[in-house]
Amino acid sequence: MTHFRSVALEHASRLINHGPTVLVTSVHGERRDVMAAAWSMPVEFTPPRIAVVIDKSTYTRELAMASGVFGVVIPGAAAIDLTFAVGSTSGREIDKFKTFGIETIKGPVLGLPLIETNCAAWLECRLISEPHTEDAYDTCFAEVVSAAADERIFSNGHWNVDDSNASLHTIHHLGAGKFVRGSSMQQAKPLTR
Amino acid sequence: MTHFRSVALEHASRLINHGPTVLVTSVHGERRDVMAAAWSMPVEFTPPRIAVVIDKSTYTRELAMASGVFGVVIPGAAAIDLTFAVGSTSGREIDKFKTFGIETIKGPVLGLPLIETNCAAWLECRLISEPHTEDAYDTCFAEVVSAAADERIFSNGHWNVDDSNASLHTIHHLGAGKFVRGSSMQQAKPLTR
Repeated sequence: MTHFRSVALEHASRLINHGPTVLVTSVHGERRDVMAAAWSMPVEFTPPRIAVVIDKSTYTRELAMASGVFGVVIPGAAAIDLTFAVGSTSGREIDKFKTFGIETIKGPVLGLPLIETNCAAWLECRLISEPHTEDAYDTCFAEVVSAAADERIFSNGHWNVDDSNASLHTIHHLGAGKFVRGSSMQQAKPLTR
Repeated sequence: MTHFRSVALEHASRLINHGPTVLVTSVHGERRDVMAAAWSMPVEFTPPRIAVVIDKSTYTRELAMASGVFGVVIPGAAAIDLTFAVGSTSGREIDKFKTFGIETIKGPVLGLPLIETNCAAWLECRLISEPHTEDAYDTCFAEVVSAAADERIFSNGHWNVDDSNASLHTIHHLGAGKFVRGSSMQQAKPLTR
């Protein structure tokens, strides 16, 4: 049984507000791919817009440019090894979904391949054509058109991070396959002036 | 005694590779400011280039555009309350450095006000003029020209996150003053195919 529930579009940017490493998925015709991307960020809440660095040498970039869409999946701590595996292999050589036994669902709006097992959330994104930044910085801007999250860690527009959902804690790539987990949620207190 | 040591420029992008919430500092003539920014990412390792969303309504944006430079400071967990405080007040109304008693050092290359107390690292950045993305997405591209980190958590180009440096663990804003800490460093293992 899936624990994924729709996320209202005005809350979609919150899913990557805290800088998790994500997976980027793509499909064009019969071809599909998934890669890891440490470099992404929201750029606006309403409409929900994001920027992701997708290197121009990658197969995902080729498919995303051809289709005009891509998926963003937020892996949980249980998917650390999978994230590193899809980040260190090329979709030009293997079908990573088959090779690593990755189950997908089909995105409701854009039909993108998305992953829910061991993942905290996903977003379907439509590219906003920005040829200059795509070329100069590999930075792809996009608008989120649908999103969902595992209600055990994100519900009513808010992250709820605690010991009960450790396998879904987001992961943040330090380099060379080393990650830290986003854990120990803490509320800031007002400072005395 | 400071624990900050220079970071080689080819390692500078790693300082924000894992999506920490940062402070952005600015100075122009006698005016200066510091704000919080959850939305930043590297876009290239060599040369080290980053993108940061700096809302056009902020005082920091005004000063950074006037001077062509800004600083990026990576607060540690001990600076959660400070980060939220400078993120929820305006430099047009108060000098946040004075109001919150923030000690600064002067950046070695650009002379920017930078913060080391309770912080893990800092970077001095020179804006790359990109009027369209600055206007459309508040996304400011910049090149890092100097960087340093507290050697207790980042040395020889690598993050070393453990229980001994908990106060310097990076913080990642979930929204509304709630943060998770980047802790529990874990190395990914190869997946069997």
